[in-house]
Amino acid sequence: MKYISILGSTGSIGTQTLDVVRQHSDKIKIAAISGNTNIELLKSQILEFEPELCCVMDDLNALKLKKMLPSHPKTEIVSGMEGLIALAEYDRSQIFVTAISGMIGLKPTIAAIKKGKTIALANKETLVTGGSYIMNLAKKYKAPIIPVDSEHSAIFQCLMANEDKAVNKIILTASGGPFRGKDQEFLKTVTVEDALKHPNWSMGKKITVDSATLMNKGLEVIEAKFLFDLEPDQIEVVVHPQSIVHSGVEFIDHSTLAQLGLPDMRVPIQFALFYPNRMENGYKSLSLTDVGTLTFEKPDLKTFKCLALAFEALKAGGTMPAVLNASNEACVKLFLDKKISFLDIGNINEKVMHSHSPKEIDSLERILEAEEWTKQTIRKFI
Amino acid sequence: MKYISILGSTGSIGTQTLDVVRQHSDKIKIAAISGNTNIELLKSQILEFEPELCCVMDDLNALKLKKMLPSHPKTEIVSGMEGLIALAEYDRSQIFVTAISGMIGLKPTIAAIKKGKTIALANKETLVTGGSYIMNLAKKYKAPIIPVDSEHSAIFQCLMANEDKAVNKIILTASGGPFRGKDQEFLKTVTVEDALKHPNWSMGKKITVDSATLMNKGLEVIEAKFLFDLEPDQIEVVVHPQSIVHSGVEFIDHSTLAQLGLPDMRVPIQFALFYPNRMENGYKSLSLTDVGTLTFEKPDLKTFKCLALAFEALKAGGTMPAVLNASNEACVKLFLDKKISFLDIGNINEKVMHSHSPKEIDSLERILEAEEWTKQTIRKFI
Repeated sequence: MKYISILGSTGSIGTQTLDVVRQHSDKIKIAAISGNTNIELLKSQILEFEPELCCVMDDLNALKLKKMLPSHPKTEIVSGMEGLIALAEYDRSQIFVTAISGMIGLKPTIAAIKKGKTIALANKETLVTGGSYIMNLAKKYKAPIIPVDSEHSAIFQCLMANEDKAVNKIILTASGGPFRGKDQEFLKTVTVEDALKHPNWSMGKKITVDSATLMNKGLEVIEAKFLFDLEPDQIEVVVHPQSIVHSGVEFIDHSTLAQLGLPDMRVPIQFALFYPNRMENGYKSLSLTDVGTLTFEKPDLKTFKCLALAFEALKAGGTMPAVLNASNEACVKLFLDKKISFLDIGNINEKVMHSHSPKEIDSLERILEAEEWTKQTIRKFI
Repeated sequence: MKYISILGSTGSIGTQTLDVVRQHSDKIKIAAISGNTNIELLKSQILEFEPELCCVMDDLNALKLKKMLPSHPKTEIVSGMEGLIALAEYDRSQIFVTAISGMIGLKPTIAAIKKGKTIALANKETLVTGGSYIMNLAKKYKAPIIPVDSEHSAIFQCLMANEDKAVNKIILTASGGPFRGKDQEFLKTVTVEDALKHPNWSMGKKITVDSATLMNKGLEVIEAKFLFDLEPDQIEVVVHPQSIVHSGVEFIDHSTLAQLGLPDMRVPIQFALFYPNRMENGYKSLSLTDVGTLTFEKPDLKTFKCLALAFEALKAGGTMPAVLNASNEACVKLFLDKKISFLDIGNINEKVMHSHSPKEIDSLERILEAEEWTKQTIRKFI
């Protein structure tokens, strides 16, 4: 029996992870879960999966949840960052699923790495902001990092049994988002409602806006660089509107492997939980003849500035990707609050980056400092 | 230094194998080669690669070649089936490339297997006619079989690091040949010249006609069944006119891996020679955005009867695939000699199969008997 802990069990990746666990309850068990405000859902998850530990970020919500479960002493309820660390380090658990989004995932992930847990990585910020610092830590503590993101899982699957040195380039596919083919003129008119309609994947608001700006793909480029130890020019972003080819790898012999499937996050989640084994499931089979046509085009880096900024941040190195990430997080919030326009997201990100002198990252503090600097700096540009 | 022997060095796969060897002359050396009538080419290959052994099938041609190389005592010239066996068993050679087409490849391949050589398999007939008998022999003598065919190499690459049991189905792609989308009415008018125009790959005459009838794909289905130990219904043929996706594997978790590349046989040849390592080369990189569009459709099994017959032969088992293969070989020859029509190929194959009661294959003799029976039987239907 494998035990797993989920950081963020009430979100999109968290609930889908529980779906996978539900299907393989004879092989995998939930040791610990965490949530923030959705305590109703946490309650039902506790009743169904009976974890030994549950962390609620907010103290008050934790208290409320305790009162909702008077006759359920099996699950210990903890709270705050302290609680998240306890969950990350939880002894019985072998796999730590970082299903939360945002910088809040960083500290617990580092704690889990230091305990040598297998990290099923769905938190983008971990590698976008921590980069080689995190990868070196994972190496030092022998904590395998298995990506959950469909693109990185695709690349990971293509790399199985191939040597690191054998990679020529990776092909990171992007759906292109709802504004594929549009120009800057069109993007001036984009509303929050427009940006929240994603053609292929159902996801949270932040990531849906990031998909519309292609910042999401930019963050994935940064993640891929560190996860697979690549140079920026070894990463090719290809717009593929059907989201069937989830990504691929071209090897030095000019043979390319790609991973394909219907868009279903449970496939890469299950892969991460059972790696290196593959498990049967009741998900839908891909029929290439039903799909019929797959298309591929170059991304428009002029219109979708955020993607170009990601490559720029990678080349600048050090704290620059963390700054871009923090700036973008703030901008997306401002956009969702209707305080800035859609195009402002890229423009402000650019201005913030161009005001920053990147520093080397040798600790979590450097990352948090960069985030703090970004929060201060961004005010100047709004 | 790796030493290899090539059965059929003057053919399409043979010359491309030498191209690969030429590029990696610091890592790989030719121990032995063989040819049939093209002794001019054999001569230049001997002068360039200095093999220790060269077999010319025809005794007279062997003598001629000897006279053409009076001052080249490094290469021993042998002839006949005896010579081919000597080449297959050649001590110094670790890899035996079966680049010849036809039943003639069977005996030498069995000899090489019994010596535990790595078989770089490009001879279709070996597995189409020998099936599980050959696979069991390879297992017994610990002779790895690495496919050279682009489709089987694709599948082999997708299977690396995955367990056998993890396969749900394989997706065997087919260009569809020059008559894709045509109906029986159209095929009535097809000439030899029409059939010899293949859209994507440059190959020998026999295989080009087989591509036009889809018999080639049928033979590949049979090969795949034995090579990867599958049930017939685990093999899905998908028509993919661009020949970029060379084939793929859907695993039990509904994740599909596919191998892609520009059509260049040197890629799978190189892969087979250096497996499990990948080697740099100067070949062209695949750009999905240059290709732009990939399409997939179901094969038309009514019009292209030969493909349906292959599945039927697999289900019948035993000697049936060998009979289909022998019948087809004879029919293609008759078609190329303009003695039967294009549609006759499928029709006669069908009649021959329906006159055959399959027997189990437990030796090379059973296969040769089935071939002999086919040669006798086919006369009735012409």
